[in-house]
Amino acid sequence: MVVDVPAAGGRRLPSRVPVPPPRSFLCTVGASLKETLFPDDPFHAVAREPAGGRRALAVLRYVFPCLDWLPSYSLGKLRSDLVSGVTVASLAVPQGISYARLAGLDPVVGLYSSFVPALVYTVLGSSRDLAVGTMAVGSLLFASMLGAVASPTKDPVMYASLAFTATFFAGAFQAALGVLRLGFLVDFLSHAAIVGFMGGAATVVCLRQLRGFLGLPHFTNDTDLPAVMASVFSQSGQWHWQPFVLGCALFIFLQITRYISKKRPKLFWVSAAAPLVSVILSTVLVYLIHGEKHAIQTIGSIKKGINPPSFNSLLFSSLHTWLAAKTGIITGIISLAEGSAVAKSFAMAKNYHVDGNKEMIAFGVMNMAGSCTSCYVTAGPFSRSAVNRDAGCRTAASNAVMALAVLATLLFLTPLFRHTPLVTLSAIIASAMLGVVDLPAAAHLARVDKVDFCVCLGTFLGVVFGSIDVGLIVAVAVLILRILLSVARPRTTALGRIPDTTVYRRTDQYDMAQATPGVLVLRIDSPIYFANASYLRERIARWIDDEEDRIKAAAGEDKLRCVVLDMGAVASIDSCGTKMVEDLKRSLDKRSLKIALANPGSEVMRKLDKSKVLQLIGDEWVFLTVADACDYAQSNCNASPDEMV
Amino acid sequence: MVVDVPAAGGRRLPSRVPVPPPRSFLCTVGASLKETLFPDDPFHAVAREPAGGRRALAVLRYVFPCLDWLPSYSLGKLRSDLVSGVTVASLAVPQGISYARLAGLDPVVGLYSSFVPALVYTVLGSSRDLAVGTMAVGSLLFASMLGAVASPTKDPVMYASLAFTATFFAGAFQAALGVLRLGFLVDFLSHAAIVGFMGGAATVVCLRQLRGFLGLPHFTNDTDLPAVMASVFSQSGQWHWQPFVLGCALFIFLQITRYISKKRPKLFWVSAAAPLVSVILSTVLVYLIHGEKHAIQTIGSIKKGINPPSFNSLLFSSLHTWLAAKTGIITGIISLAEGSAVAKSFAMAKNYHVDGNKEMIAFGVMNMAGSCTSCYVTAGPFSRSAVNRDAGCRTAASNAVMALAVLATLLFLTPLFRHTPLVTLSAIIASAMLGVVDLPAAAHLARVDKVDFCVCLGTFLGVVFGSIDVGLIVAVAVLILRILLSVARPRTTALGRIPDTTVYRRTDQYDMAQATPGVLVLRIDSPIYFANASYLRERIARWIDDEEDRIKAAAGEDKLRCVVLDMGAVASIDSCGTKMVEDLKRSLDKRSLKIALANPGSEVMRKLDKSKVLQLIGDEWVFLTVADACDYAQSNCNASPDEMV
Repeated sequence: MVVDVPAAGGRRLPSRVPVPPPRSFLCTVGASLKETLFPDDPFHAVAREPAGGRRALAVLRYVFPCLDWLPSYSLGKLRSDLVSGVTVASLAVPQGISYARLAGLDPVVGLYSSFVPALVYTVLGSSRDLAVGTMAVGSLLFASMLGAVASPTKDPVMYASLAFTATFFAGAFQAALGVLRLGFLVDFLSHAAIVGFMGGAATVVCLRQLRGFLGLPHFTNDTDLPAVMASVFSQSGQWHWQPFVLGCALFIFLQITRYISKKRPKLFWVSAAAPLVSVILSTVLVYLIHGEKHAIQTIGSIKKGINPPSFNSLLFSSLHTWLAAKTGIITGIISLAEGSAVAKSFAMAKNYHVDGNKEMIAFGVMNMAGSCTSCYVTAGPFSRSAVNRDAGCRTAASNAVMALAVLATLLFLTPLFRHTPLVTLSAIIASAMLGVVDLPAAAHLARVDKVDFCVCLGTFLGVVFGSIDVGLIVAVAVLILRILLSVARPRTTALGRIPDTTVYRRTDQYDMAQATPGVLVLRIDSPIYFANASYLRERIARWIDDEEDRIKAAAGEDKLRCVVLDMGAVASIDSCGTKMVEDLKRSLDKRSLKIALANPGSEVMRKLDKSKVLQLIGDEWVFLTVADACDYAQSNCNASPDEMV
Repeated sequence: MVVDVPAAGGRRLPSRVPVPPPRSFLCTVGASLKETLFPDDPFHAVAREPAGGRRALAVLRYVFPCLDWLPSYSLGKLRSDLVSGVTVASLAVPQGISYARLAGLDPVVGLYSSFVPALVYTVLGSSRDLAVGTMAVGSLLFASMLGAVASPTKDPVMYASLAFTATFFAGAFQAALGVLRLGFLVDFLSHAAIVGFMGGAATVVCLRQLRGFLGLPHFTNDTDLPAVMASVFSQSGQWHWQPFVLGCALFIFLQITRYISKKRPKLFWVSAAAPLVSVILSTVLVYLIHGEKHAIQTIGSIKKGINPPSFNSLLFSSLHTWLAAKTGIITGIISLAEGSAVAKSFAMAKNYHVDGNKEMIAFGVMNMAGSCTSCYVTAGPFSRSAVNRDAGCRTAASNAVMALAVLATLLFLTPLFRHTPLVTLSAIIASAMLGVVDLPAAAHLARVDKVDFCVCLGTFLGVVFGSIDVGLIVAVAVLILRILLSVARPRTTALGRIPDTTVYRRTDQYDMAQATPGVLVLRIDSPIYFANASYLRERIARWIDDEEDRIKAAAGEDKLRCVVLDMGAVASIDSCGTKMVEDLKRSLDKRSLKIALANPGSEVMRKLDKSKVLQLIGDEWVFLTVADACDYAQSNCNASPDEMV
């Protein structure tokens, strides 16, 4: 039946909403799987090619993104990549050594980790700006979680095996997420939680550098502030002023160079080269003044040569395999959260596209390959990638350049680090970590969204005063709670007509929106399904009660006769949802109220039709617009026999 | 700035959306807490009374719902409640004995459980129709979970202690959910999952009755179909025909009475009294023919007297306390899911209101009191409540009547059950369970919603072929996945103008909806927050790419100049969401596209304003309606200098 009512613009148009043709179950499931797993349509480029050789090439290009830029690689690009690769390498060498020590591993492992993974990423990575390397937070996670079962100093072989195993699990987990296209799970870690977590971890890492600054012989494995402070002050008899002075001088030098680069982006190389300069200066100094006599500890000898294989030391059936897997998965998620955020934000700035799931596969393969070649977990840390970008990198080849520069270091330069003082590494770490504590972001959260700020602060305090685990649990619990609440308590609003238009808007937002006499218009802003159907039933009942109370109080107004539900924003409905609409219809019948639906989508129409709820409501009560529904209700609801004039 | 554009109805109206006045953080949190925890405004009645004595009375009435009906209790109501209470008692006595045996407890515990909890519910319950009693599924859960650590036959004292402890935990958990107003968590168990779970559990319970029908001496504790069948067939040498014949006869008798009551609702008492009649008939028969000589096992002696106290046997520091707590919590959730669904649907049919959280407190107190008085877990099972309603109950006093009838049985009649054959109990259980397998509901799901049907089937198969745990895990995993997907993949749709109106509708639903040249209108049907911000960014980018591809293919069309986002259904936005809008604006700037927002809600306007994203977009680009936005975009986007004619 087609009902004609006056419509917007003065013309008449059929206001009935047709039931769309049925779709098969498989077709629906297929479409929703596609939207869920391939929202960015990654095979777009492949599908566009005609079958045959060109499509095979497109597939290859999809699997190996380097084939995208290799054919058009030019001398100009090479020059840019060379400059940026060497610049990043000058940062990667001292940072690699520092972070490996932070992770409790042999310093050379940090260099290994900048070599093989960077080569793998050159082939598989789709970001042009990402610079591969080890992360401070990942290193801290390794030290605190694996250090609980194997001491890095007393049982270094076992500890290294655990670290390689954890790296393997991190890679396997990342690759699995990517292959199964479950990358969206990483999005559930909100920005606020990451800011809090990173800030907390960086604070802890900074404080732990007091060991190097004060030249302490022992230190706690715990990461919380009270334990670290207790460890520092319990050894107050062994504090040394010499490393402290050297460390502070280097720290101030590094901070000044960072400040310069920040003020003048063209001088990006000042801060990028500063760590290497401080290593060189402090090594020469310590060599000249015989630092060991002044209580300045040094790195000691570092092996020459490229990555030895390590797949034999992976532990798949040890007592501690589960711990290694847990460490790997947590580190893997955190590094993905940072890495894919960095890749995406840089890609957006340069207006190219990064496929998050493909990035995950690249990270996964990179870490699995790394675990077999004496590397520990790597990612695309923000600071290093920013240097890479500022240095003008054009393609992922800058990672290969960096890898070759690190290779040269491994082959020829490692003996030079023998006299590098440990406090230099501490100063480099502390300086880098200060940049990770993102106070402006926290301030922004406090201004824009207090709830997010609470999440951020809670995570931060959890990490600093509890442990990394506590911080993560706080973050995940709050995020799950927020999701559940947003799902269980969708918004319903009452609408009113903007005078002299057919536009209906929220009465609580626009004072000029006027309720239609005798009609209550409600909008539901959410899919209706098991998680909220029961709430919506009660909430709508309360809207109606409140409206009837209001009308009773304001004597003389028209009795309520019809409830119009604006279903425009109801994306889907399940069997609990159709039951809810059916129950609502029946309970309104008992109160002699009519119900009308406005603008239901195709999915909703199909489900209401199949569940026979549409027939119950009557399809003449389903309208294209709220205005149509209200007009029809006003002219058709007054005819109940006991109220006829 | 106020921009005037032609609006619907031909008049001009200011189309700018004002930023609403800021609200304090505490005020926002307070409002959202109220909406989350008190969506049904439970203290409405209390708040309406003036302070003083009348308000105190309202509080008392809120806490003890019996004060609502007691003052107006009349002789007519008493007569109705007497009839229904006695009818339910005639069902409660044989069912209580049967279910207690199913749970592995002394049969008299089933009678105790229909006494004290029913009295508690009379005082605290707010449903007029609910009949309190033990549940078959809860009994099965007790037997299978607690039976794993204590044998009901070899160590009955320990087993009973565990059962009382589990009951206490069930009650404490239910009361805690109610007091903390977290009742909505129970809504997350979707109807489909409950249908599957109940059906599976009922199937298992039915199959386990083969023990009674065949008179088997031993039986497995496992609940899965293969284990039960193996147990039955491994004892094929010990099958007896006498209990089988008696059982089948009783089962058929019970089915026929159920059929009669179903066809003629007025004869509800036929099926209600049938279990008691079968108990009486079979007891007399077995007594006369000396059943024990014919391999017919009987219940044996049952203690006389009212509930003995049992709080001394609650185990709070045993090895198995955790198991008891787990059993209690799972049983507590399941019984709440059934009980509150029953209470709500009966209340809706009679048009009165039941407060879900208050019901939970009533259930919780009832079970905690029960655990101290030798009762095991009770709820409001559907079958018994339906009998109560059909028998014409008027208030919760019918539960008190039933309790008194059960008390009389406990005091005087228990010796009569001495010769009741066990197979009678099996027949009663099997007959009741057939009613729980809700095939019409499953068929409805299969027709209306295939995904829900898969959830239902998966849960059913998990329970029948795996175990109760497996079924529950399947259900919860699928439900969490569905929630995550609905949250992570909100719907976005392109809108087009319905000719000769200012109405914009989905182009994929209405063929007549026409795209505005040069403008892409997208609607987002979800809050924008951390869980979906990243997806929405990518999805919108894909919409724009697809639109530009389409325009390129259809040569001659206007270039895309503006993207209009219909934000009407965006209920809220967090800091990740505002960042998404900001990123979108910046990336559209790079493509020289304008962005306009239509109809953002007050919450969204406030957040966009605070995060300075509104200033970035320019508040002249925020419109009341999509039509305004499109008109403005068409007249203001063509002026880029390189394209001027």
